[in-house]
Amino acid sequence: MRIGFIGLGIMGKPMSKNLLKAGHELVVSAHSAAAADELVAAGARQADTAREIAEQVDVVITMLPNSPQVKEVALGPDGIVAGAHPGLVYVDMSSIAPLVAREVAEELAKHEIPMLDAPVSGGEPKAIEGTLSIMVGGDRGVFDQVEPLLRDLGTSVVHVGDIGAGNTAKLANQVVVALNIAAVAEALVLSQKAGVAPEAVFEAIRGGLAGSTVLEAKAPMMINHDFKPGFRINLHIKDLVNALDTSHEVGASLPLTAAVLEMMTALRADGHESDDHSGLVQYYEQLAKTVIGRSEP
Amino acid sequence: MRIGFIGLGIMGKPMSKNLLKAGHELVVSAHSAAAADELVAAGARQADTAREIAEQVDVVITMLPNSPQVKEVALGPDGIVAGAHPGLVYVDMSSIAPLVAREVAEELAKHEIPMLDAPVSGGEPKAIEGTLSIMVGGDRGVFDQVEPLLRDLGTSVVHVGDIGAGNTAKLANQVVVALNIAAVAEALVLSQKAGVAPEAVFEAIRGGLAGSTVLEAKAPMMINHDFKPGFRINLHIKDLVNALDTSHEVGASLPLTAAVLEMMTALRADGHESDDHSGLVQYYEQLAKTVIGRSEP
Repeated sequence: MRIGFIGLGIMGKPMSKNLLKAGHELVVSAHSAAAADELVAAGARQADTAREIAEQVDVVITMLPNSPQVKEVALGPDGIVAGAHPGLVYVDMSSIAPLVAREVAEELAKHEIPMLDAPVSGGEPKAIEGTLSIMVGGDRGVFDQVEPLLRDLGTSVVHVGDIGAGNTAKLANQVVVALNIAAVAEALVLSQKAGVAPEAVFEAIRGGLAGSTVLEAKAPMMINHDFKPGFRINLHIKDLVNALDTSHEVGASLPLTAAVLEMMTALRADGHESDDHSGLVQYYEQLAKTVIGRSEP
Repeated sequence: MRIGFIGLGIMGKPMSKNLLKAGHELVVSAHSAAAADELVAAGARQADTAREIAEQVDVVITMLPNSPQVKEVALGPDGIVAGAHPGLVYVDMSSIAPLVAREVAEELAKHEIPMLDAPVSGGEPKAIEGTLSIMVGGDRGVFDQVEPLLRDLGTSVVHVGDIGAGNTAKLANQVVVALNIAAVAEALVLSQKAGVAPEAVFEAIRGGLAGSTVLEAKAPMMINHDFKPGFRINLHIKDLVNALDTSHEVGASLPLTAAVLEMMTALRADGHESDDHSGLVQYYEQLAKTVIGRSEP
């Protein structure tokens, strides 16, 4: 298949490489010349604008930071919309606001470009392995058409509903992850302050109802104070802002998500924006004047 | 071993039966005559007071509702302390405040009765199967002495620290479970209000970083509005009150735990105290004027 890929960042670069490996013909564009050069060396062609890419492929994929960049690349003067041609499909794999995904899709529909929103979960390691979880919203027929291509990038590819549903599922995912991290942080700081070794508590509770992927992945990082990302606090802030914007629009109330966003924002202001999101525990440590893993005075 | 068992409730009855099955000599007492009769029919002897039980056994186990009952049974005029004799060990398997466990242990130490606090996780099904998780605090030598007996009741038996540490680990467990339930509730209500089927979101996120034992066990209960316990809201309220009392004593701050306690208290006031704790989702549903699993208007 002829695929265009726009956005060769931490996620986009390994994803586009996996598409090349799977035998697709690839045209890329990126802000980073170095990233584009790397893909060209691996066999891709390069183009300057989203329009030029759209004109020469069957499917355009974008992997961009947030809603404004997606709007610009899709609908801007030199955007995908300007390269419309029969058969073109647009798959946005960025994590953006579901409402923006719907707005962009509506506008593209006027030019007969069907769109899917297909954000991913799993981070850089799973992007490299091609084992991402992909949550897809949009027309079922269009999904069926591009599903094989998505399976070159991820192992779990689930059609969750209409356009925007992919990003809604992604926001639900990020809400659960944020609150599960906060849960581990509250439990470990409580244990630490009560004079019980967090390692022992981790060992005692991991096999029961408190068990989770977050507990397994993040409790050791908290205990070792190793906050090398992984997934950075400033990216999780973006997702929680989108989750709360969406909840306000649709009339849901997410008080714990709002509280964790405040904590992460405080940590960002304190210089921790590039810590792994498990660094949330530092918010609790500062308040309790403690450090996980050290003995209490 | 000659074992005394006090408290034949939902948990205590199956636990004491497992001790009988394992070949121990058992003396029981219970508020419920029916429960005591059932154990006597199965081969146990019965006694009227904790003192009488303590006098004739090597290990006394209690499984009681909360801190005040443990204090009374351990230290009251006809309590375990009154039946002190060389070799007697006391194992409290109730879920109580860690501070109370330490207070009771200090008092019993004056009478040379060593004490372990050994609360459990897993609920009635695992009590019946003998597959509980048991978190134990107290002297390591005493732990080694009674560990085989605890292994007749549970599959995970972990010594987490000094006396009180068992209950601290249990509170940490209950904090994680409460917040992981709230996480699933926020995510599913957001999805529901945004018009995306909660079942599809559950399917899309369960395999990734959002995966948890709570998600697997409780998301289907929320989606089906099946709140048959399981673990009742009023019991989780008790545990969260103990967690917050403890956090206040030791100087930790647990804002999300406090928020979930408020939600559960509101549900209790609304008649939901005997719902499974996954019924927490009803707090969110009421605010968002929705019901998970129904189509949005």
